[in-house]
Amino acid sequence: MKYSSIPAAQSVVDHCKARGISNIIISPGSRNAPLTIGFSEDPFFNCYSIVDERCAAFFALGMAQQLRKPTAVLCTSGSALLNYYPAISEAFYSDLPLVVISADRPCYKVDIGDGQTIRQENVFEKHIGYSANLKQDVVHATESLMRYDPDQLAGLSVGQAQAQVQQFNDAVLDKALNMAFMDNCPVHINIPFEEPLYQTADEPSVVPQIHFLEERDKPAPSAWEEYKNIWKQAKRKMILVGVLPPNTIEREFLDILAADPSIVVFTECTSNLSNTNFFPNIDSILAPIEKAGNREELFGLLQPEVVLTFGGLVVSKKIKAFLRAYAPVAHWHVDKRRAYDTFFCLSKHFKSDPNDFFKEFLDRTTVVESGYKAFWAAKREHYRLQRERYLGEIPFTDLWALGHILKSIPKNFQLQLGNSSTVRYAQLFDIDPSIGVFCNRGTSGIDGSTSTAIGASVYYKTPTLLVTGDLSFLYDSNGMWNNYIRPDFRIIVINNDGGGIFRILPGKEETHNFNTYFETTHSLNLKSLAELYGFDFEEVAEKDELEDTLLQFYKASERPKILEVKTPRLMNDKILLSYFDFIS
Amino acid sequence: MKYSSIPAAQSVVDHCKARGISNIIISPGSRNAPLTIGFSEDPFFNCYSIVDERCAAFFALGMAQQLRKPTAVLCTSGSALLNYYPAISEAFYSDLPLVVISADRPCYKVDIGDGQTIRQENVFEKHIGYSANLKQDVVHATESLMRYDPDQLAGLSVGQAQAQVQQFNDAVLDKALNMAFMDNCPVHINIPFEEPLYQTADEPSVVPQIHFLEERDKPAPSAWEEYKNIWKQAKRKMILVGVLPPNTIEREFLDILAADPSIVVFTECTSNLSNTNFFPNIDSILAPIEKAGNREELFGLLQPEVVLTFGGLVVSKKIKAFLRAYAPVAHWHVDKRRAYDTFFCLSKHFKSDPNDFFKEFLDRTTVVESGYKAFWAAKREHYRLQRERYLGEIPFTDLWALGHILKSIPKNFQLQLGNSSTVRYAQLFDIDPSIGVFCNRGTSGIDGSTSTAIGASVYYKTPTLLVTGDLSFLYDSNGMWNNYIRPDFRIIVINNDGGGIFRILPGKEETHNFNTYFETTHSLNLKSLAELYGFDFEEVAEKDELEDTLLQFYKASERPKILEVKTPRLMNDKILLSYFDFIS
Repeated sequence: MKYSSIPAAQSVVDHCKARGISNIIISPGSRNAPLTIGFSEDPFFNCYSIVDERCAAFFALGMAQQLRKPTAVLCTSGSALLNYYPAISEAFYSDLPLVVISADRPCYKVDIGDGQTIRQENVFEKHIGYSANLKQDVVHATESLMRYDPDQLAGLSVGQAQAQVQQFNDAVLDKALNMAFMDNCPVHINIPFEEPLYQTADEPSVVPQIHFLEERDKPAPSAWEEYKNIWKQAKRKMILVGVLPPNTIEREFLDILAADPSIVVFTECTSNLSNTNFFPNIDSILAPIEKAGNREELFGLLQPEVVLTFGGLVVSKKIKAFLRAYAPVAHWHVDKRRAYDTFFCLSKHFKSDPNDFFKEFLDRTTVVESGYKAFWAAKREHYRLQRERYLGEIPFTDLWALGHILKSIPKNFQLQLGNSSTVRYAQLFDIDPSIGVFCNRGTSGIDGSTSTAIGASVYYKTPTLLVTGDLSFLYDSNGMWNNYIRPDFRIIVINNDGGGIFRILPGKEETHNFNTYFETTHSLNLKSLAELYGFDFEEVAEKDELEDTLLQFYKASERPKILEVKTPRLMNDKILLSYFDFIS
Repeated sequence: MKYSSIPAAQSVVDHCKARGISNIIISPGSRNAPLTIGFSEDPFFNCYSIVDERCAAFFALGMAQQLRKPTAVLCTSGSALLNYYPAISEAFYSDLPLVVISADRPCYKVDIGDGQTIRQENVFEKHIGYSANLKQDVVHATESLMRYDPDQLAGLSVGQAQAQVQQFNDAVLDKALNMAFMDNCPVHINIPFEEPLYQTADEPSVVPQIHFLEERDKPAPSAWEEYKNIWKQAKRKMILVGVLPPNTIEREFLDILAADPSIVVFTECTSNLSNTNFFPNIDSILAPIEKAGNREELFGLLQPEVVLTFGGLVVSKKIKAFLRAYAPVAHWHVDKRRAYDTFFCLSKHFKSDPNDFFKEFLDRTTVVESGYKAFWAAKREHYRLQRERYLGEIPFTDLWALGHILKSIPKNFQLQLGNSSTVRYAQLFDIDPSIGVFCNRGTSGIDGSTSTAIGASVYYKTPTLLVTGDLSFLYDSNGMWNNYIRPDFRIIVINNDGGGIFRILPGKEETHNFNTYFETTHSLNLKSLAELYGFDFEEVAEKDELEDTLLQFYKASERPKILEVKTPRLMNDKILLSYFDFIS
């Protein structure tokens, strides 16, 4: 096996290997050669080559999303690194462990006019768990250090100085990688390399010192007694679940929650939690209330005493608006690391895994009498009936197409949703519980949906379907520029010729300015992209066509497939807005 | 005319208008609606709609590069903003005035779990001239401020509080925009907006207070006497010119420099400075010395007493290596704002416009006797003869194709070059002086070449040609996703199926890992991209084909054109390396 001759490169590779970080997404470059050599020559690592760093980072994010463990990206110096930032911010707010590794020039080459050189240290500090700024090796570049940074060698032999550097580098690497594992957050490792960059050795020259952090102590549940009493007595308890990986919560706890008449559990399509007694279409419950003559009365009936939240960010704007206006007495959030005050009334952060929390909190024996759930269950039956009627009446549009597509997905598929129309439409329908549903809701950007979905598909047990809008699909077209797309990967592009979501907003007018600067119509032919990146391609623009095509679409094929669903730009918003009237 | 009803939005628009910032590149979004409305409804502004913020910012950068005045980009909140960062870093190191305007959520909505919300204030602080973090209007959102930020209203009437906010906002807008104009640097303006976002008014409600900064005092040339004496007496003076817009230096000064036997003027293709007595192919002068048996002696003869630099960053690695190893007694840099210590021997920064400097410094009457220039002029004649011979002998490769393409460009065209092989190859040839030559050398990234070229072409008096490599072209394929591409715009893609530059590096081996993680071969058919974005397309792979195609390529056409030049991946590096042997 070959090793880079540069000690710091060996250390980074060793630390990743010792912790089982085996997936490395590499973007081409010269400054990062020592690490590219180190990772790609060691068969322990699965290396992936993706040129566009923006896509590479979202690809890695998708992989981390599915593996639930740190995934690394590696790039050269300069603006290459900055292209990672959109995915880093998504990882930061989605609690995903993205390990960003950047090669840098030696520090004395920063801001002296060298090419591909920027201020890389701490450059992501606003959205990163930890920035490990490694020091340059002394043994590798004694001459340049003597010339430009003699302080680092003052009073020390070269061997002593190098030992200090390695000790420092081991410590910051420990800190970064422990944090990625413990806190599921992005971290940044920046390593300056002096030339020559391509030299290799047959044996490693460093023995890294790696210190794993123990799992943090669990909080003492004894302090929870007062909250348990509040919980037991409350007759109106709402549980709201944000983004959550499938199979996170033990079935036993879900059954208890589902059976309790004082609890309504509001889930989203990204919650990956399912029970016939839960409430999976928040907006379809709330919209009729918003439109009702007795809205204050109804909202009063819905207003919970306690709101319990867990999981990541919440998609529904209506539930946020409701809980901000009708604040509960108590809002508790359960998460090992952080709690957002989403409704401006957060009163308790339980720093706990949700299962540990439920184990302490839920008590099958004492159930408070309440008509809370039953009342809302009746509302749920009403909109469900109306929804089916409405879908039977409307023409081919975004709403109809999404409804039909979501029903067509084979069991156990992975479903990736684009932002933002797509995931909002998906919220209106029920998705088979065997299907894992994912969407980048940390920052809710349109910038990396395709890359994320492809990265997420690599190790998934079954095929993956990405449903996305035309703007998001075009934005991340480089997401398809790699050699890791499985033949069973599927993309459905809902092409409403622009950002259909802007049509739904209040205050828009049908003007040139609206069409150009908000909706952004384009008339591009997506078939060319399919040809460029080796996808099979079909397009449909009517109900029958869509139904027929979907019958074959998911079947095994030699190449991945794109299905373009062309919907009528000027009709989609009206059909959606009328839906909420219809179910009211 | 319509105005946003939000005062802060009116202020931003007013400040831009008062200063003549008329080009606004808008990416779609909802949070930025108040500004989109403000800019697009006022006929003073030329608004451009570009969806992908990464491309939008490079497009604006290209426009600023040509107009030599601030150009603005506008986007919504969240990760959208972070996609601007690669272009911002390029602007920062290329001294281009990119005005970044981002809409933000109100500050109390940051980090509470709302969508499309990140920590936008100062997010670019490592690579920005100034970050203006505007305050939220009081009159527009009194209720929310009272609830979430009562301190801002403490002891004040709403009118008083709003007056304070406006005064603050005017001040930071002044600071940002004055800096963009004075220092040619990127600045960031972040504005929090509360809903409703789409309300308009027929009359403006604010009268902004705008304070223009006077041009800074010129330095007193009296302090320059001692340097003038050094200059006059030095027998070996080297002038090295980095990136410079065309027609920057007055002809009179160039003539004096060209006539002086003690001065060698080294220019690059991006220097846009031309004189038969200058030295435009630095690497072709230096490579034969590097290879010579008497290299120390020759380098000693070339070693200057004084190096005078002006302009932006320097492409040639050989000249940097030479001047770092053979440091001059004095390195002086002339620039109004900053001086990089590129050779680790900077001794004086003349904070002056180069023309003002030359007016003081150059003296036609006293010329020191010297054989410095004559000696190197003989070397120049030698490599020029050898270069012609070599081009006559070699097969169709990157080197041959670039040489032929550069000769084919019609007079007065604008030439945009991709990074990094392309610009390095271009350095080896002479380009007609009527052609303006540009390349993103601030960070030397491959990430925005196409967007920059298209933005730079919009207002250019004549057609623009982009010559770029396949990786850079594919990386920025979204650069073609806009409606502002002139039919006379031309792209030549030198497709060597990967990053050919990596083949030239020392230490590479012909392995799977090299081909995958360094060179990054791809075999993509670029024709599909041409079809997607409405370009005519041709491809050539031989000398005759290229020659024939170029005869028609630049002629007027209804659609823009892409010419793909397929070169032999495995031969390009050998032909280039042999070139340096051949001229030695």
